Amino acid sequence: MVKKIVKRGFASDNNSGVHPEILKAIESANAGHVVGYGSDPYTEKAGELFQEHFGRETETFFVFTGTAANVLGLSGVTRSWNSIITAFTAHIEQDECGAPEKFTGCKVLTVETPDGKIKPEMLTKHMHGIDFEHHSQPKVVSITQTTEMGTVYTSEEIKALADFVHDRGMLLHMDGARIANAAVSLKLPFKAFTTVAGVDILSFGGTKNGMMYGEAVCFLKPGISKDFKYIRKQGMQLASKMRFISAQYIAYFSNELWRKNARHSNSMALLLAEKIKDLKEIKITQAVQSNGVFAIMRKEVAEKVSKTYFFYPWNEYTSEYRLMTSWDTAEEDIDNFVALLKKELGI
Amino acid sequence: MVKKIVKRGFASDNNSGVHPEILKAIESANAGHVVGYGSDPYTEKAGELFQEHFGRETETFFVFTGTAANVLGLSGVTRSWNSIITAFTAHIEQDECGAPEKFTGCKVLTVETPDGKIKPEMLTKHMHGIDFEHHSQPKVVSITQTTEMGTVYTSEEIKALADFVHDRGMLLHMDGARIANAAVSLKLPFKAFTTVAGVDILSFGGTKNGMMYGEAVCFLKPGISKDFKYIRKQGMQLASKMRFISAQYIAYFSNELWRKNARHSNSMALLLAEKIKDLKEIKITQAVQSNGVFAIMRKEVAEKVSKTYFFYPWNEYTSEYRLMTSWDTAEEDIDNFVALLKKELGI
Amino acid sequence: MVKKIVKRGFASDNNSGVHPEILKAIESANAGHVVGYGSDPYTEKAGELFQEHFGRETETFFVFTGTAANVLGLSGVTRSWNSIITAFTAHIEQDECGAPEKFTGCKVLTVETPDGKIKPEMLTKHMHGIDFEHHSQPKVVSITQTTEMGTVYTSEEIKALADFVHDRGMLLHMDGARIANAAVSLKLPFKAFTTVAGVDILSFGGTKNGMMYGEAVCFLKPGISKDFKYIRKQGMQLASKMRFISAQYIAYFSNELWRKNARHSNSMALLLAEKIKDLKEIKITQAVQSNGVFAIMRKEVAEKVSKTYFFYPWNEYTSEYRLMTSWDTAEEDIDNFVALLKKELGI
Amino acid sequence: MVKKIVKRGFASDNNSGVHPEILKAIESANAGHVVGYGSDPYTEKAGELFQEHFGRETETFFVFTGTAANVLGLSGVTRSWNSIITAFTAHIEQDECGAPEKFTGCKVLTVETPDGKIKPEMLTKHMHGIDFEHHSQPKVVSITQTTEMGTVYTSEEIKALADFVHDRGMLLHMDGARIANAAVSLKLPFKAFTTVAGVDILSFGGTKNGMMYGEAVCFLKPGISKDFKYIRKQGMQLASKMRFISAQYIAYFSNELWRKNARHSNSMALLLAEKIKDLKEIKITQAVQSNGVFAIMRKEVAEKVSKTYFFYPWNEYTSEYRLMTSWDTAEEDIDNFVALLKKELGI
Repeated sequence: MVKKIVKRGFASDNNSGVHPEILKAIESANAGHVVGYGSDPYTEKAGELFQEHFGRETETFFVFTGTAANVLGLSGVTRSWNSIITAFTAHIEQDECGAPEKFTGCKVLTVETPDGKIKPEMLTKHMHGIDFEHHSQPKVVSITQTTEMGTVYTSEEIKALADFVHDRGMLLHMDGARIANAAVSLKLPFKAFTTVAGVDILSFGGTKNGMMYGEAVCFLKPGISKDFKYIRKQGMQLASKMRFISAQYIAYFSNELWRKNARHSNSMALLLAEKIKDLKEIKITQAVQSNGVFAIMRKEVAEKVSKTYFFYPWNEYTSEYRLMTSWDTAEEDIDNFVALLKKELGI
Repeated sequence: MVKKIVKRGFASDNNSGVHPEILKAIESANAGHVVGYGSDPYTEKAGELFQEHFGRETETFFVFTGTAANVLGLSGVTRSWNSIITAFTAHIEQDECGAPEKFTGCKVLTVETPDGKIKPEMLTKHMHGIDFEHHSQPKVVSITQTTEMGTVYTSEEIKALADFVHDRGMLLHMDGARIANAAVSLKLPFKAFTTVAGVDILSFGGTKNGMMYGEAVCFLKPGISKDFKYIRKQGMQLASKMRFISAQYIAYFSNELWRKNARHSNSMALLLAEKIKDLKEIKITQAVQSNGVFAIMRKEVAEKVSKTYFFYPWNEYTSEYRLMTSWDTAEEDIDNFVALLKKELGI
Repeated sequence: MVKKIVKRGFASDNNSGVHPEILKAIESANAGHVVGYGSDPYTEKAGELFQEHFGRETETFFVFTGTAANVLGLSGVTRSWNSIITAFTAHIEQDECGAPEKFTGCKVLTVETPDGKIKPEMLTKHMHGIDFEHHSQPKVVSITQTTEMGTVYTSEEIKALADFVHDRGMLLHMDGARIANAAVSLKLPFKAFTTVAGVDILSFGGTKNGMMYGEAVCFLKPGISKDFKYIRKQGMQLASKMRFISAQYIAYFSNELWRKNARHSNSMALLLAEKIKDLKEIKITQAVQSNGVFAIMRKEVAEKVSKTYFFYPWNEYTSEYRLMTSWDTAEEDIDNFVALLKKELGI
Repeated sequence: MVKKIVKRGFASDNNSGVHPEILKAIESANAGHVVGYGSDPYTEKAGELFQEHFGRETETFFVFTGTAANVLGLSGVTRSWNSIITAFTAHIEQDECGAPEKFTGCKVLTVETPDGKIKPEMLTKHMHGIDFEHHSQPKVVSITQTTEMGTVYTSEEIKALADFVHDRGMLLHMDGARIANAAVSLKLPFKAFTTVAGVDILSFGGTKNGMMYGEAVCFLKPGISKDFKYIRKQGMQLASKMRFISAQYIAYFSNELWRKNARHSNSMALLLAEKIKDLKEIKITQAVQSNGVFAIMRKEVAEKVSKTYFFYPWNEYTSEYRLMTSWDTAEEDIDNFVALLKKELGI
């Protein structure tokens, strides 16, 4: 047997396990036969819950990973001669091994941002060559909420981007791998900063917030992606025993588990930031608006501490590190981490 | 809540749920943090178990679906100007919505078979245009074990195919979505009809035999696919919380759960076949060697019975139907099905 | 300098050179500057000529090769989850190195034919799995006119296929690499067996009939392929100095050069067939309806003769050879070939 | 007939026609039959000429367009999980409609440059995530010589880039659409700033310098791209009557036609720059090192002049325009252009 592991670090919210209520829902769905591939009552119910949260016209398709949700969602609204514009720090640019290009055939264009957040004026540099066959045609702007730096777009900021893209016949995609953390941070229902603000396609993530696996592609406008069922299947993302993804989402939306988990991880990040922000040599580099803390610290210190509490460097050139909290981070984890950090800092 | 469903049909082995030991293993792995994306002790252990069963040089990569295992495994050993040869009835030809072509860029060539089993002489028609740049270069033959018709290749038959392809600088791929059922049917260890018989790449499936999700791409020869880790990630199949796939495989190989489940489903298919083979109007069309029974029956009869015990037509032109048993099929399911069938047949 | 070569063989109509009128047209277009990439008066004029021959709604796009015309034309009307059905002997199946799969992402399905001609009933085996996301959705049937075996579809046969596919929401594509030979054979204007008979997309070839380079993708129905200009550019087939393709087509359609050339090559094939059909050991295997003669002959004989008059084996298993005539084949070429063949046959 | 056009503008060097010596070579190759697809003596001879200019190990493959040369050359040395780094202004980034992404599957990363020239230190921002499966692996740096801004890399600059990439196991690609202009500008043989300086893959262009069509992919190191013949064919770029491309290259390298043409167009650009650089309101923005002049001028002025002498805006935000000279630009064209420009400027 594999020895049980109880250590919790700050490497990533997906290093955490699964919330017990999610596991219970999986068990509960495990009875008898249901039709495979999503024609089951669990999936029907889960789809309805997405409509409650995002609007009655929402079409939801489950896939396995966040990368798949992004890539297939974008594939559903583009042709290969389009371009997709995103932040240089975006997951689709840095962390998907070129899956967007390989699968959609599109060009991915980037803009530089200080905090992971795109502003309309940053997009201008890519708004040329329209109708010119030599040039990839801009079709989608993709934002991440919360961003890869833990910052959060306000619904006004999202609306401004939506207006910019819609004015140009384009669409707005949101990578919501940590959308629950954003909702908690903004103190808003999901719909307010997505459907209502003008988002067209959403990758809804649950795995980083206590689920086991299974993300969702949500088309928030009607008719936006005909034939997506073929894209999902050809994209190798159609689950045979889909009920076990759907059951997780039913539990996730019930009793506000999503909110409970995200509220906890956000508050842990704030606590962590509070406790380290004034330490000598430590410099927090991004506003702590969700469940990540970005901080500059000396490399030797970081490496020593991360042997016990694992976390990743974010930018080796600036000696910046990323500390992620998660739904199961305990206050004592933070206390222990801070104590060790202080020791290494010689405080 | 979604109402619990206890009915069991004969539509597909993936309409069944998850074996309790699998669920228990998932729960058991759910403690503390482990590094995501497969750098965890559960995944290490699972990889070792695959080496025990398939040989010390086996490299195993988990993915989510059988389609993904096939497509990515084939992608790992081909370039886009290759062709892949398979049976016309193969899953990669009929049931993957063109994922092999889209992702590998290869041409998929087919041969007609009476029973889903390829014989070397059937391949000859595609063995031309070698080194000729106008023609896709044959690189892989892909067989399914058990076949989509429930028949099983002997290890001698597999060896003959392996010799044929290896003599031509090609490779042999096995889609093992139901490989456990084959092992039970052949009364052989996995290795005897895979690695030892000359199979190069294997899709190892567990979902149809009591697992929840997660299939494996196994490279059985050393060095056969450098850089596969990038193919998996770009193929959107890298699981963040991979321990929950790995834990399932640990349980699957422990106490021979794979064998227990497959033995049961195979025996249920034999029982079912025994009980219907002599019924008037029923004609069993394929040898019952694993967990599927193929039978011709009148359309009206089939449609009535399948309202209660769901199953699929296989070939509408010949009025042939497919009845799949699974790890949880009960004798009473068969008794009840046969009783209903007899009633509809007027017996 | 490269030594001039005056020998003419029977290997392929594209081993021939360029008709002098074509060369003259190229020279004539070589004056001053015109806007590149097709916005020039030559291309406008050539487009009008296509409309004269194929109907007022024809949209014509020049590309470089026949493979490109086929692949991009098919790409213009498919999505990657579609399938394209063609004859096993078709150029898109045998001679394009998987370009259709790589570029369109589609599955290419085949039917066996005795003479390269598809009949509606042959298509039935692929007409299943409609609306079923696991299965590639049939979208186009692609026929070759003249076929790769030199046979010619009648307009009635084409209409029957067009009706079959249109009834199923599909489209009919014609690979017209040798369409001029077909028109001459049928004694019909182009339109009669294309637009009028129900063809939707046409690859129009001129290179095999006396042009230098440059084939055309013709969409014969309005609105069939929006955005094709992007497909052509992304397909690397947008010519900068397009006027030199267009000028060739202007000459090709003027004074019926296309007809003159095709009539000549067809008549040479008939002459060749006439002269060898009764020779001992020679068996002509396909109706001689255009500019190809297919004949079984002894391998040793064929290899000796082809040292002087180069031609290719068609099927090594049956010892079948392909003899192609072209616009510049002279009667004396045939006389000399036949004399040599007789000598080798010991006649 | 299409009316002959004798006007010459400054829109692009590919708006010009074909040099008479090229046309003559085409005519001269037009005799009898040769084997198609490149197995002909013209292609053999042309390959030898490339080896004379680029080194004995050079492998040359003809394709039709510059886009194809870039995309297929890059495809020959990458896998889809690689990234390709280039200048934001590069042709592969701005003007190929996403063909690199679609065909190679790779991510294209960019760096900002003031003059189109990449310096090693600019590449650092993309040198991370090495061996990390989440991140596209950097494989090629692609530079354009002359750049899209008419500037020219010195051989030392190229060597510095080659050292940088080779130290990291990467390769250096050169888009040489205007390589002849660079050679003339540098007063160096081709080899000195390509093979000798460390370039691995070269797109060699002739169309912009007096040829009709046909560019070359040159692999300058042995064994760098096995199996490229399949990539070219699957890339729809294998010419059937290849002798007519090869004959052009034979003429192009004979009597230094490439040098004569490039020297002329370069000198015309210098003359043009000389004559407008001191005009009021005109500001030349890039060093004039080859056959392009980049200048800021008032939009109304530019638009009026370009009605007679067609040229393109380069950057609408800065009111920058691009004036290209070509092999056939006459001094009187420049005189007339300058006279008109002065008139519109009110001088």
